Amino acid sequence: MIFLDIDDKNFDQQFAAILSRGEETGREVEQVVLDIIAAVRQRGDEAVLEYTNRFDRLDAKSITELQVTDEEIDYAFAKVKSEDIDALKLAVERVARFHEKQKQETWLSTEETDIMLGQMVTPLQRVGIYVPGGKASYPSSVIMNAVPAKVAGVPEVIMVAPTPGGEINPHVLVAARLSGVDRIFRIGGAQAVAALAYGTTTIRKVDKITGPGNIYVATSKKLVFGQVGIDMIAGPSEILVINDGSGTPGHIAADLLSQAEHDELASSILITTDRGFGEKVAAEVERQLAQLSRESIARASWDKFGAIISAANLDEVIEFSNRIAPEHLELAVSDPFAILPKIKNAGAIFMGHFTPEAAGDYLAGPNHTLPTGGTARFFSPLSVDDFVKKSSIVYFSESGLNRLGKDIIRIAELEGLEAHGKSVSIRLGGQE
Amino acid sequence: MIFLDIDDKNFDQQFAAILSRGEETGREVEQVVLDIIAAVRQRGDEAVLEYTNRFDRLDAKSITELQVTDEEIDYAFAKVKSEDIDALKLAVERVARFHEKQKQETWLSTEETDIMLGQMVTPLQRVGIYVPGGKASYPSSVIMNAVPAKVAGVPEVIMVAPTPGGEINPHVLVAARLSGVDRIFRIGGAQAVAALAYGTTTIRKVDKITGPGNIYVATSKKLVFGQVGIDMIAGPSEILVINDGSGTPGHIAADLLSQAEHDELASSILITTDRGFGEKVAAEVERQLAQLSRESIARASWDKFGAIISAANLDEVIEFSNRIAPEHLELAVSDPFAILPKIKNAGAIFMGHFTPEAAGDYLAGPNHTLPTGGTARFFSPLSVDDFVKKSSIVYFSESGLNRLGKDIIRIAELEGLEAHGKSVSIRLGGQE
Repeated sequence: MIFLDIDDKNFDQQFAAILSRGEETGREVEQVVLDIIAAVRQRGDEAVLEYTNRFDRLDAKSITELQVTDEEIDYAFAKVKSEDIDALKLAVERVARFHEKQKQETWLSTEETDIMLGQMVTPLQRVGIYVPGGKASYPSSVIMNAVPAKVAGVPEVIMVAPTPGGEINPHVLVAARLSGVDRIFRIGGAQAVAALAYGTTTIRKVDKITGPGNIYVATSKKLVFGQVGIDMIAGPSEILVINDGSGTPGHIAADLLSQAEHDELASSILITTDRGFGEKVAAEVERQLAQLSRESIARASWDKFGAIISAANLDEVIEFSNRIAPEHLELAVSDPFAILPKIKNAGAIFMGHFTPEAAGDYLAGPNHTLPTGGTARFFSPLSVDDFVKKSSIVYFSESGLNRLGKDIIRIAELEGLEAHGKSVSIRLGGQE
Repeated sequence: MIFLDIDDKNFDQQFAAILSRGEETGREVEQVVLDIIAAVRQRGDEAVLEYTNRFDRLDAKSITELQVTDEEIDYAFAKVKSEDIDALKLAVERVARFHEKQKQETWLSTEETDIMLGQMVTPLQRVGIYVPGGKASYPSSVIMNAVPAKVAGVPEVIMVAPTPGGEINPHVLVAARLSGVDRIFRIGGAQAVAALAYGTTTIRKVDKITGPGNIYVATSKKLVFGQVGIDMIAGPSEILVINDGSGTPGHIAADLLSQAEHDELASSILITTDRGFGEKVAAEVERQLAQLSRESIARASWDKFGAIISAANLDEVIEFSNRIAPEHLELAVSDPFAILPKIKNAGAIFMGHFTPEAAGDYLAGPNHTLPTGGTARFFSPLSVDDFVKKSSIVYFSESGLNRLGKDIIRIAELEGLEAHGKSVSIRLGGQE
């Protein structure tokens, strides 16, 4: 962890190492992924099966064998504690209720009597959601991807998840059924992304692929973008806590560590107008670190990408926050709503002293899939918007076309597109 | 042009050539673009200047010299006919009025007394719009990109346009000022995209880059995606006309040709339940082709990528349309609103016999930047949505956290993320 002063003339330089922790994809990874995609496009199911058996150490004879059965999901429900099922149910309900509010309606404007214009909103027809395997296989990821798709009205949600050594997380299966996932395949990596993007005999081509994954998954999503839609490109996770000296140092230390325990590349930053408060938080982090089961990960993250920054006033603090556009932003100040309108770039904003980031990670309602690494400047949280698309509606009556025809033809002509103009004039003059 | 019957057993195979006309980017183009991006990242303005002078045959001494001055725009206004200025003004007004309806409000839900959840909508802070140079330099493209950005509230819109041999289209400059563009640079290609994505001394880094361009521009946009946002990845343009035998063959022929005149890769398809009507359209296309100034382009497109398809009934027609997800879809039928709800995938839908696609291209109001090549399955028309982003708002009071805390901790624990749980429990029990 590094202590910094935002008014120090070397601040930008000192802070640069933390900002640049996300690595760009090497060309080697890209080549591996390109080869896998090409193989899946050429040989379909056969290639998916080969890669899956090889990478996940399985011995499946067909893709069908890799589809999770209803019985397996029933078994997961029997195995998982009922309190856990209840907590996941509560999460699904709350996430669904929040995302319902994001739905947009088709509209048609009738403010002109001879022209109607509108926008039709339709759900994507089929989407794929990627759920990582092994230790990073989280039921909350399933919920955060599948529920918005189902709220949007997507008829078919296909989930893929690698199962290294054959193991599948029962909580993930429970979350999948509770969220309304339609089919689940035990496949992962670039081969799963390629199968969803291009389709195989068994796995139907989807319209969009969402969900987190390792560098191979992220790279393959980027490479199939355009063939299908994808959600944002996610890098390592981060939190920025804004503080004005109010609140409890131990609480903020706990929030910083909840981010740091994710992985060694995670970054936790506190910026405060009260340097003394910052020092207390630093001491609390040390004390709490020693008590964590994931101490070594959290410590590595905190050592390398942790920072406590002091600033002269909240304006400086907010300017800094807008500049780095944090994924998670806690406004741990006495009056968080007073500064909300000044926040220009952030994935999710946690207001006040009783809203730890963890509250938003699971069941407050908003999505936990958020733009990282400064991309909150232009990306939004995953939402119902990601699972619908829009079509413009244009209706001209004969009189509407008569009214605007002359100007349409004029612009067509100044652009040198004569046939565009003629498609209008032929309807105006009766000159077929 | 090819006549096809959708019920022919070889239909899919026969139609495949038309579907696959968009080429994928070769690795050679990608390497050229990667080199340009690397040079701009390393040497900034200097590299942009070198490439610009070389590719556009200029002799500029600095990037500043490449910025278009207010005097140049004044001069364009003096040179352009007042009727043209009026037509462009009308387009700007109508496009702005339509896009105003797309604006979304920040909302905050107060349905729980101890937890508030919401979504804040904020404009991107700076965007770049790309306008092609030379013959494809269209004022309508400027309007369709800049107006939605300004309606969204983007404070700074930077336009880039290559000027081969120094020439700049005066209509483009007029459209830029009318649309509210803030700065214009005479630069283009991958070097312009790289400058906007990474920033140079003179050109500030933007949050998003939109607008059409050649293969180098499209490839560089795809490569900088993630560093900045981009709009959709556009391929060659297309139109699908749905017909039930009603209407006038000459009108539909004119619409097909308005698409075909764009470029040789454009595709114009009519699908009709009335084969005789289709034959009349074919004859009309031939007759009208001979009268077009862009005959050779339109003929090349029509010969290679034109099709007239007959189908047994409108259900078959609609199923086909949803499958290919056309960029432009004309419902040239007697009752277009009756089939609108069955349309699942389309960029823009032109209703009835008096709405030629050209009406939507310029000034009806909706955007003419539309998803091509089947990507209307998941992409939407360019809109105000592209120039804003959202942040989730999460507020828990102490009682709200007490109410949900137990379930948050439970999910954190089943995911093995202990520090997540502790950031909640530390606030509940007073156990710092």
